[in-house]
Amino acid sequence: MDKRPIGLFDSGIGGLSVLKELMKKLPNENFIYLGDTKNFPYGNKSKDNIIGFTRNNIDFLMKKNVKLIVIACGTATSQALDIVKDEYNIPIIGIINPTIDYLTKSYQNKETIGVIATNGTIKSKMWETKIKEKINGAKIISEKAPLLAIMAESGWTNNKVAEYTIKEYMKVFKKVDRLILGCTHYPFFKKLIRKELPNIEIIDTGVTVAKYLKNYLKENNLLNNGIGSYEIYLSDYNDEFKELAQKFLNQKDITIKKQF
Amino acid sequence: MDKRPIGLFDSGIGGLSVLKELMKKLPNENFIYLGDTKNFPYGNKSKDNIIGFTRNNIDFLMKKNVKLIVIACGTATSQALDIVKDEYNIPIIGIINPTIDYLTKSYQNKETIGVIATNGTIKSKMWETKIKEKINGAKIISEKAPLLAIMAESGWTNNKVAEYTIKEYMKVFKKVDRLILGCTHYPFFKKLIRKELPNIEIIDTGVTVAKYLKNYLKENNLLNNGIGSYEIYLSDYNDEFKELAQKFLNQKDITIKKQF
Repeated sequence: MDKRPIGLFDSGIGGLSVLKELMKKLPNENFIYLGDTKNFPYGNKSKDNIIGFTRNNIDFLMKKNVKLIVIACGTATSQALDIVKDEYNIPIIGIINPTIDYLTKSYQNKETIGVIATNGTIKSKMWETKIKEKINGAKIISEKAPLLAIMAESGWTNNKVAEYTIKEYMKVFKKVDRLILGCTHYPFFKKLIRKELPNIEIIDTGVTVAKYLKNYLKENNLLNNGIGSYEIYLSDYNDEFKELAQKFLNQKDITIKKQF
Repeated sequence: MDKRPIGLFDSGIGGLSVLKELMKKLPNENFIYLGDTKNFPYGNKSKDNIIGFTRNNIDFLMKKNVKLIVIACGTATSQALDIVKDEYNIPIIGIINPTIDYLTKSYQNKETIGVIATNGTIKSKMWETKIKEKINGAKIISEKAPLLAIMAESGWTNNKVAEYTIKEYMKVFKKVDRLILGCTHYPFFKKLIRKELPNIEIIDTGVTVAKYLKNYLKENNLLNNGIGSYEIYLSDYNDEFKELAQKFLNQKDITIKKQF
């Protein structure tokens, strides 16, 4: 048993889609969430910058005495995780490996897998590389969606703009068997995506990460049996975040703290 | 007379809205345009980064032996121009001062001026400060529009997404007397903006810069009397840029060169 909290970070509000699933699956854990809103959006920044932000975020969470870190951000997972993971003496988990794990176990022959993600993630080809490593001959269709994270951060997840943006981005995925939401901001648009792709599996990495993490904590004897809690920190405070977070997590009066 | 070219730069395609007006007003000049697509978008990056990008862009244009540089980018004008302008031995002109110049000459008592721009520009309060310096008691309404530059760069300037995005952003400007497009990407949406605000003056900084520059060149004996030309360089080459540039400038077969 390990009573220390679990740390998570994202560039902004996106990682809350992971936090939400973790809280469902691991109700006895304490979570510390950092939204690096000062440096949002990560999706179109250089790899060097992403690595720097990632180190800063991990350093902050380490000071909070976390037992494990979840990189709840697709861009930081694809560009920085492999570089920084051995620099720290606690486990660091991204959103890609747990999802590949799930895919490998459930893959049906000749399936086509769609991946939608930020510019940086698509450019890194990390999803493609990791899927092909595990699943021989997998067909993959990738598409970048530079507007979605910014729209989510503006709270535009259910208006006309969101509707038509999703319509555009989903065009290339009409024939895939499953679609991976490769950025943690994208589950905010799940209803709209479902409308465009009614019959396929939409993979929310929050769900695959939660499942993976529960197993990992159990196997390594790291589970907590407390009453469960969460704290949210932002590197650049803004009121909109609070409002969006309350709505998305379905909680009243969330306290948002300034990072430093 | 001075036969050397005029240099311009922007984070991407936005500055073409300035180039277009310059070519109209100064048909005998040679222009060298740099789109810093590698670092696009500027609008939500830190001031330090913007200053660094600006210096790199100016260094590149200086090597092309330009006689003058136009910062055809609202974010770089608001965040970097005042810092870098004395570091070089040629004139550097941004999009703000020429526009303030025009405003000061034409301002009517009690007018309300709207400014729409990127997050970085709005945060810098540069438009507000400079307008208030020159126009006593001017009322100003500012609003950030984080999606527009990215939409322009995606070629989404006349679809449903653009339409509804403009509708949203224009809500706060319904009662202004004029609206300054504080980012050079925004003239790409001029028709849609006009639909929302049919009766006010929409200030395209390309137009104010062109007028200002013509005077400046004349007064300083820097005009050219050649046949006129332009070259376009990108720091990160992409085919979409070419297509968009051809459409926007109404030219066939533009040659786009890689910066290095």
